[in-house]
Amino acid sequence: MAGNSTGQIFRLTTFGESHGYAIGGVIDGCPPGITIDEKFIEKEMSRRSPAQNVASTSRKEKDKVEFISGLFDGNTTGAPLAFIIKNTDQRSSDYDELKNVFRPSHADFTYFMKYGIRDHRGGGRSSARETAVRVAAGAVAKLILAKYKIRIQAYTSQIGNIAINKKYTDIDVAAIEKDPLRCPDKKISSQMQKLITQLKDEGDTIGGIVCCVIQNCPAGLGEPVFDKLQADLAKAMLSIPAAKGFEYGEGFFSSTMKGSEYNDAFENKKNKITFSSNHSGGIQGGISNGEDIFFNVAFKPVSSISKAQRTVDAKGKETMISIKGRHDICIVPRAVSVVEAMAALVLTDHLLKLKTMK
Amino acid sequence: MAGNSTGQIFRLTTFGESHGYAIGGVIDGCPPGITIDEKFIEKEMSRRSPAQNVASTSRKEKDKVEFISGLFDGNTTGAPLAFIIKNTDQRSSDYDELKNVFRPSHADFTYFMKYGIRDHRGGGRSSARETAVRVAAGAVAKLILAKYKIRIQAYTSQIGNIAINKKYTDIDVAAIEKDPLRCPDKKISSQMQKLITQLKDEGDTIGGIVCCVIQNCPAGLGEPVFDKLQADLAKAMLSIPAAKGFEYGEGFFSSTMKGSEYNDAFENKKNKITFSSNHSGGIQGGISNGEDIFFNVAFKPVSSISKAQRTVDAKGKETMISIKGRHDICIVPRAVSVVEAMAALVLTDHLLKLKTMK
Amino acid sequence: MAGNSTGQIFRLTTFGESHGYAIGGVIDGCPPGITIDEKFIEKEMSRRSPAQNVASTSRKEKDKVEFISGLFDGNTTGAPLAFIIKNTDQRSSDYDELKNVFRPSHADFTYFMKYGIRDHRGGGRSSARETAVRVAAGAVAKLILAKYKIRIQAYTSQIGNIAINKKYTDIDVAAIEKDPLRCPDKKISSQMQKLITQLKDEGDTIGGIVCCVIQNCPAGLGEPVFDKLQADLAKAMLSIPAAKGFEYGEGFFSSTMKGSEYNDAFENKKNKITFSSNHSGGIQGGISNGEDIFFNVAFKPVSSISKAQRTVDAKGKETMISIKGRHDICIVPRAVSVVEAMAALVLTDHLLKLKTMK
Amino acid sequence: MAGNSTGQIFRLTTFGESHGYAIGGVIDGCPPGITIDEKFIEKEMSRRSPAQNVASTSRKEKDKVEFISGLFDGNTTGAPLAFIIKNTDQRSSDYDELKNVFRPSHADFTYFMKYGIRDHRGGGRSSARETAVRVAAGAVAKLILAKYKIRIQAYTSQIGNIAINKKYTDIDVAAIEKDPLRCPDKKISSQMQKLITQLKDEGDTIGGIVCCVIQNCPAGLGEPVFDKLQADLAKAMLSIPAAKGFEYGEGFFSSTMKGSEYNDAFENKKNKITFSSNHSGGIQGGISNGEDIFFNVAFKPVSSISKAQRTVDAKGKETMISIKGRHDICIVPRAVSVVEAMAALVLTDHLLKLKTMK
Repeated sequence: MAGNSTGQIFRLTTFGESHGYAIGGVIDGCPPGITIDEKFIEKEMSRRSPAQNVASTSRKEKDKVEFISGLFDGNTTGAPLAFIIKNTDQRSSDYDELKNVFRPSHADFTYFMKYGIRDHRGGGRSSARETAVRVAAGAVAKLILAKYKIRIQAYTSQIGNIAINKKYTDIDVAAIEKDPLRCPDKKISSQMQKLITQLKDEGDTIGGIVCCVIQNCPAGLGEPVFDKLQADLAKAMLSIPAAKGFEYGEGFFSSTMKGSEYNDAFENKKNKITFSSNHSGGIQGGISNGEDIFFNVAFKPVSSISKAQRTVDAKGKETMISIKGRHDICIVPRAVSVVEAMAALVLTDHLLKLKTMK
Repeated sequence: MAGNSTGQIFRLTTFGESHGYAIGGVIDGCPPGITIDEKFIEKEMSRRSPAQNVASTSRKEKDKVEFISGLFDGNTTGAPLAFIIKNTDQRSSDYDELKNVFRPSHADFTYFMKYGIRDHRGGGRSSARETAVRVAAGAVAKLILAKYKIRIQAYTSQIGNIAINKKYTDIDVAAIEKDPLRCPDKKISSQMQKLITQLKDEGDTIGGIVCCVIQNCPAGLGEPVFDKLQADLAKAMLSIPAAKGFEYGEGFFSSTMKGSEYNDAFENKKNKITFSSNHSGGIQGGISNGEDIFFNVAFKPVSSISKAQRTVDAKGKETMISIKGRHDICIVPRAVSVVEAMAALVLTDHLLKLKTMK
Repeated sequence: MAGNSTGQIFRLTTFGESHGYAIGGVIDGCPPGITIDEKFIEKEMSRRSPAQNVASTSRKEKDKVEFISGLFDGNTTGAPLAFIIKNTDQRSSDYDELKNVFRPSHADFTYFMKYGIRDHRGGGRSSARETAVRVAAGAVAKLILAKYKIRIQAYTSQIGNIAINKKYTDIDVAAIEKDPLRCPDKKISSQMQKLITQLKDEGDTIGGIVCCVIQNCPAGLGEPVFDKLQADLAKAMLSIPAAKGFEYGEGFFSSTMKGSEYNDAFENKKNKITFSSNHSGGIQGGISNGEDIFFNVAFKPVSSISKAQRTVDAKGKETMISIKGRHDICIVPRAVSVVEAMAALVLTDHLLKLKTMK
Repeated sequence: MAGNSTGQIFRLTTFGESHGYAIGGVIDGCPPGITIDEKFIEKEMSRRSPAQNVASTSRKEKDKVEFISGLFDGNTTGAPLAFIIKNTDQRSSDYDELKNVFRPSHADFTYFMKYGIRDHRGGGRSSARETAVRVAAGAVAKLILAKYKIRIQAYTSQIGNIAINKKYTDIDVAAIEKDPLRCPDKKISSQMQKLITQLKDEGDTIGGIVCCVIQNCPAGLGEPVFDKLQADLAKAMLSIPAAKGFEYGEGFFSSTMKGSEYNDAFENKKNKITFSSNHSGGIQGGISNGEDIFFNVAFKPVSSISKAQRTVDAKGKETMISIKGRHDICIVPRAVSVVEAMAALVLTDHLLKLKTMK
């Protein structure tokens, strides 16, 4: 209701501000008997953590997930799975000079308009720090999906105007995690890195696109008419800080296509109904059809730039602002893990929903 | 839970198949004292109705909204507002030959995989006919929004490769409803019409884009972190049949922008805090900031084409299909009203949510 | 949210006023493939219908359930199951003289205070007529429960001070539906009938108690800590018009018991874990344990009495009121079917929830 | 969905087991600007804490509520309010001998049947320890209600067969918190204390009744037809461990009353509409009418008794059990605070809901 929960059966509620004691989450509805592989969760957390590449902030966040409840001998019990992630490397002083000004294109102004309160310490609840909780919960979801052999893999497909001009089917999946920007094309990645280094010098930031692929998803997930699978994925993705767009299958390009070009013909391959193409992106009528699900998420540039910007203070007086702190130049390489996590949460919820129809 | 409800406080539950007795909806949570202007509702319904332009099916649906409950002397009472829309111009026989084949890129196959049932009559619940209920409920929502002077206007901005290359701020709003395709640029519209006529002859269909603008929305709507205003809008839009993408503000283009280009600077105009630009699209940190909200929704081409297509029957045998019936060439001009309706439902729900925070 | 829905997975939304065109409901989340036995539904509806016994109003309500959607060849499809029940025997004129007065212990005053609207026609939404929708939906739920061999049976155990002083295990189940008051003890029933006849002459009404038993419910239903099975049953029962109390197992009497008297010892009977007693009433820790679930629901006397009462009009002026119309003397015999229906809705919802934990 | 959340707008999600690191909760939907009076919260916690009277366990729980998020300078911000209460005085060894047996009338068996897991450490999630979180959240709710001058006060009205035979209107409210059993009648209380001492010696336990009164609640709270105020109160109360019954107003006694005795006549007192009596218990048609709301909650005896009981082990073998540990003889004096807390949560939720109707 107040926006800090997602999912209906597999339901995550999150809490915590960037500069408080800890952030955390509670998963209610996690089936019992899931073995919580802490190494896997740690690895997932490290994929989101900053200070890992040229595009990221130099803040060091350990992001250790500490489970408080819901486990017995390392397995889920069916009780709520609660966890916290302590905030270790805070420097509230970085934010002191922001106390009385609204940062352009940040949430400072809208939170103030909505709640009547100005918590200037690093954005408080609006900080992208909250996405660490999403990644932790997403890792739990991935452990459930693994039982069904469902795989989710995202990567950086574009930063600024530099884009991989290949379909996901043509990229080298193994290359993604080896690349500092999670871009599976070495050449493209080095161009991206050059751009980022240049923007860092300029005190500027840049946007980009994450592509995500879900493989081995069974047919039947999605609840028409309002909770279609793509609808829930779209909501999940647009809830990520800085996300500005979502498209699946042929996406925006499908607006230029004819039905005869777009439609995925049915075929019979070895007595199995298959599809000759996958323009649909694995979802038809709001329900997964068994093919790969793939989608893109567009991210705007990070708002915190050190370049001078015009703004006003809380009293409305015009002034200039130059945001110091330690900020990302491009959020996209880190957002890859958040996109995957949100996809995992959506899929797990729908997977459990499907069981109620049997 | 099972997907036929949307909204939390202002909550619409819909029901009905394309070829049953009626479709309908129940709105729970409608505040008392709203005067139901039946003429307005009728007008909104007519905007969605087919047979209105070259792009549409020749089916004639009267789409009269009949209220069953929740009204006293024409005003809402706070009780659930239920209504039905009878299905009048059905021709089930049109669908008889589809009984045993799956139509490519339709929901036939996925519904069968999910529910184990094959209701071949015009798509049953998966038919876009259900959107008539959305428009009816959206009209009620608009009556509430009108009290707050919030205006929603959508239009056709692209069909195939033919696009209006203007911002919404530069178009002639008055021209929208006068145009048969709801495209506010006469020249562009006539090119679109030519394209559609040509595709009709070819037995083909085409996709397009709807642009939607919300004006006079107060600051404060949206519930971070998961129910951000753009997240709920994205979900609402992607729940519309044939929608493949959503972007708001600078959308996908923002992936190519620098922070210094993108950020909306604050200004003080006559002692009011304003913004020098609106790349954000009226939402920051998931909460409306008082500026115009604008977004695009991409639609794929209609799946039902009369051109011959490869498919399989229920037994998996390969065969050809040529869909007769009476279908739209391009759904976009009619989708304009559905996009507006869904936006109205989302805004009304968030408007009522905002009250709980005061 | 606004109170007209119940259940989470098997979710019923109801609508309609006593004196409008129809009342009705939408069930979302009904699994596909359930055969809707219309005769059974009709029979269930007749159990609630008035004019069946000495305690009831002489209004004749046919209460024909008309399904609008969600069925194909008589089976559920997984789509929302919508139905209406037309209001046939209305006499709005009966209520004309109530236009300006508040009936004591009715909902007139509170609805007016909440919604600011006075719909005097038979109570509008607050009329017990809405329970017909509960019975219809409960009948659908019973068809699902029947697949699991779960049986629900309620009966009249007390009217006024006349009570059956037997446990449910000692009554003759077969006698319930044969008795005009649904009291399985012939002697007690005739005393009750005498009391009712006398009260009718006096223009008065009387309260009573319904006892309900659920047999063959599997262990595992109930979602601690807030959605315990007894908690959802209690809510369901207290949502029935005129219900004033709920107790399960030993109920209020358990407040006088010692642990050593109350506790249900475990036994091993033929290699099956069983219980030596069932003071718990089939639920422990909020979860069904496989034993019979039994509970009592207390009902206050019907508020509409023809005896003169003191009241005020809408302007606050004191006046007298004598309610004519055609009203029940005791709601309990008809409430039996409503109690069963609500129990069926709760159980079905929890049964489907249980599947998400596997 | 999975049962660990309560409320819709003011929504509490709880987590934690009796013998883990901590228990805790997250409140989402708390309005901003509420000053969190930590002293008040501490006082409320102490009312629930054990070792305070003859009826209670000798375990010492400090029950310090530590807020993790949602506060800025001691005031709520509108962000989720998360808190933990560390488990300090655990003695898991007390439970070692229970590892392989099911305690009679405990949740051991049903949890095992539902989740397939046996967490023997003090009941895990099913321990009444979780109610500490309810009291903490209830204290926050009371701070909101205080702004509306709504007061909630509960007390021990019966233990075993020893009962206060007075209406709540005739008791001395000031005496409640001074009494070790929270029984406002000194004479009755000393009889109760004698009974408890005697049962302690016998290794037995006893049930009882809590009476709760809500004063100054405005008219208009409650959402018919399913979320009536009494329905939500009933659910909240029956979700408390050991609760077996709920009744409001005249409750079960109303089953013996005539309409002419029961109905609350309207009066005009100094130009204000009032009621001549309050048999209804402050709620009519599911909506508060402005009068005092009062209700009773029946509690069964504590299951953990040191007297020997028959049971079976996990393999089904019959055996005897004598539960040592440190347990309450009668839960009722401590349950008083839990009943108040749950009432506060329900009222706050409905108070915020009411705002959406305006």
